[in-house]
Amino acid sequence: MNWEKFYSERAKGLRASEIRELLKMTQKPDIISFGGGLPNPESYDIKHVRECIDYVMETKAKKALQYGTTEGYSRLREFLAEYMTEKGYDSSPENIIITAGSQQGLDLVSKVFIDKDDTVITESPSYLGGLSAFRAYLARIEAVPLQDDGMDLDLLEERLRSEKKPKFIYVVSTYQNPSGICMSSEKRKRIAEMSLEYDVPIIEDNPYSELAFSSEPPEPILAHSDGNVLYLGTFSKTFSPGIRVAWICGPSEIIKKLVIAKQSTDLCSNVLSQRMVYEYCKRGYWKENIKKIREMYRRKRDIMLKAMEEYFPEGVKWTRPEGGLFLWVTLPEYIDTREMFKDAIKNKVAYVVGTAFAGGKNTMRLNFSYPSDEEIVEGIKRLGEVIKSRMK
Amino acid sequence: MNWEKFYSERAKGLRASEIRELLKMTQKPDIISFGGGLPNPESYDIKHVRECIDYVMETKAKKALQYGTTEGYSRLREFLAEYMTEKGYDSSPENIIITAGSQQGLDLVSKVFIDKDDTVITESPSYLGGLSAFRAYLARIEAVPLQDDGMDLDLLEERLRSEKKPKFIYVVSTYQNPSGICMSSEKRKRIAEMSLEYDVPIIEDNPYSELAFSSEPPEPILAHSDGNVLYLGTFSKTFSPGIRVAWICGPSEIIKKLVIAKQSTDLCSNVLSQRMVYEYCKRGYWKENIKKIREMYRRKRDIMLKAMEEYFPEGVKWTRPEGGLFLWVTLPEYIDTREMFKDAIKNKVAYVVGTAFAGGKNTMRLNFSYPSDEEIVEGIKRLGEVIKSRMK
Repeated sequence: MNWEKFYSERAKGLRASEIRELLKMTQKPDIISFGGGLPNPESYDIKHVRECIDYVMETKAKKALQYGTTEGYSRLREFLAEYMTEKGYDSSPENIIITAGSQQGLDLVSKVFIDKDDTVITESPSYLGGLSAFRAYLARIEAVPLQDDGMDLDLLEERLRSEKKPKFIYVVSTYQNPSGICMSSEKRKRIAEMSLEYDVPIIEDNPYSELAFSSEPPEPILAHSDGNVLYLGTFSKTFSPGIRVAWICGPSEIIKKLVIAKQSTDLCSNVLSQRMVYEYCKRGYWKENIKKIREMYRRKRDIMLKAMEEYFPEGVKWTRPEGGLFLWVTLPEYIDTREMFKDAIKNKVAYVVGTAFAGGKNTMRLNFSYPSDEEIVEGIKRLGEVIKSRMK
Repeated sequence: MNWEKFYSERAKGLRASEIRELLKMTQKPDIISFGGGLPNPESYDIKHVRECIDYVMETKAKKALQYGTTEGYSRLREFLAEYMTEKGYDSSPENIIITAGSQQGLDLVSKVFIDKDDTVITESPSYLGGLSAFRAYLARIEAVPLQDDGMDLDLLEERLRSEKKPKFIYVVSTYQNPSGICMSSEKRKRIAEMSLEYDVPIIEDNPYSELAFSSEPPEPILAHSDGNVLYLGTFSKTFSPGIRVAWICGPSEIIKKLVIAKQSTDLCSNVLSQRMVYEYCKRGYWKENIKKIREMYRRKRDIMLKAMEEYFPEGVKWTRPEGGLFLWVTLPEYIDTREMFKDAIKNKVAYVVGTAFAGGKNTMRLNFSYPSDEEIVEGIKRLGEVIKSRMK
């Protein structure tokens, strides 16, 4: 049977993630990879996670193994409503749905909002998983360039003034993937106002805001909203990505719609995981662990920045993120990071090409959370050699 | 902001599940409910589940908490490939993708195959979660009536001869939800042949086949296939639904496509759950637990059938399932089970109306896995009174 002819239009367009394909090349043990986006395994608080699993399985096993409600475990929703209230958005559990990672959140948002050929505005560069979720529902992506303090809002406004309205604006507001850029407080207020003025909702994806290295990041765009922003948060970077627990926060009427969409998508999220995350948060371990991870990643960022100063040639620019997992490197325009990738692999170092995120041909994303401190120095040294050999 | 105008066409059509709304009425503690579809909590093998979690967290915590591959944990896929080979379909891990419950499997299948206005053929009655997954992608459902030995294949063939080809045929082959009916071996062979002859693939949803009460069920339709069947299996009924681990088995080219679709849907399934399920299977606990559940549910079915003989009036018919969780009751045509539902609630007993599954107005689904033995007898007695009061 030739299955291809049965594929939906969207399936015909689905391509394997370029990052994943590239990353397969980098899994040899002697390659130092800045390509992935994984939390450092040392960030997992195994002792306390086990304590929480044990408690749940000791006291609530029958409930933890049973089907749960689609909207998510009620106590975790209560906890997150309080957390989001602290972040500046007055929430009750009706404003929260638990999702299987933020990627599911992006899928549900796409399912509920995107019709074929709808336009979605994103940053350039933007998170690949967001782009692929929107494309899977046949959206057209229009990218607005990032500046050092976030999306270029003058260009955005120009776009919003034009005839065809986009369905929503997708913003990774804090320590963005892939650039590491944090949108300024002023721009957060202004984009929230523009969203109301031009009547276009905002999807604020905020997986890294807990990972601030010095001062706290600005309040989320959601905090400046008036029913016009949906916010995606996650435990993937601060607890564990493997247990797939994240949330969406926003106006209760849309949360209700997302719950109905989730019913036919997977019935409910993992109940055992939700209960153990709740225990972990309730016992105060989450906040403690966030502190630990901030220190670890700040150190790794500092090591990477220092090594770049030392080993990268003049004419190369990079961001100096105040949080998160990534920084963004811009080479002279005549260097194509895709062509250079082969040289890098030969020299036992890897990155992700910027074009994977709809960024420029001369850009790349580097991850500093996963490699060891020593690997960061050695890897940047190797990458510096590769770049130098391409400099004119 | 008025969000409704931003909803996608599919979102406008999404409605809260009727079952879920009805079930909310039945959650008072004094109501005996045959309405749900939950495994009995006594079926959870908590001791051994804990042993497996402990082992994973003791030896592989950093991997269990990290992101996993989209296709699923390799050892679990190997185990399932062997399992499916035993079931009559020669498999390797490339034929398996792990999903977050079979509901996600149905969502991924819909995503990959269904364009707006495509036709999907289902049984009548059919599994509500299947219907809602297909409808969420704007499929048109055409239902072919069930007979005592499965779908009416003469009617199916008539339909397949007509001009407009359906995208696929959806069959819950074994101890079907909601009817409890098991498709005969002859029909399995014939439908597999018809699928090839008329060039329409089959989606075989088989969550209950492990729950056989006397003899083993016939081989799955997949075992008679030649690259034309996708099979959905799950651990929800035999291990735990709360941990959301299921699988799809079929031709490797479609599995690959489903993996790409899953990337943008949720990146990967819960890694801790997959690893603990694998340990549980490897240690032989799964097969042991299946035996235990078979005995428990057979006993409950027997109790329900006996009580129905005693308390239901003449003129009422019901299926006598050889496995699974459900049986199907057909009342005289002049009784509308939706109208009767209020009487039932007044009499402290609940069921699901057959129309929720695209079944007849005079039908209902009863679940025997969840209530206690005593509740089954008392609940059937109460339901018998309600039915009698409606008999002419």
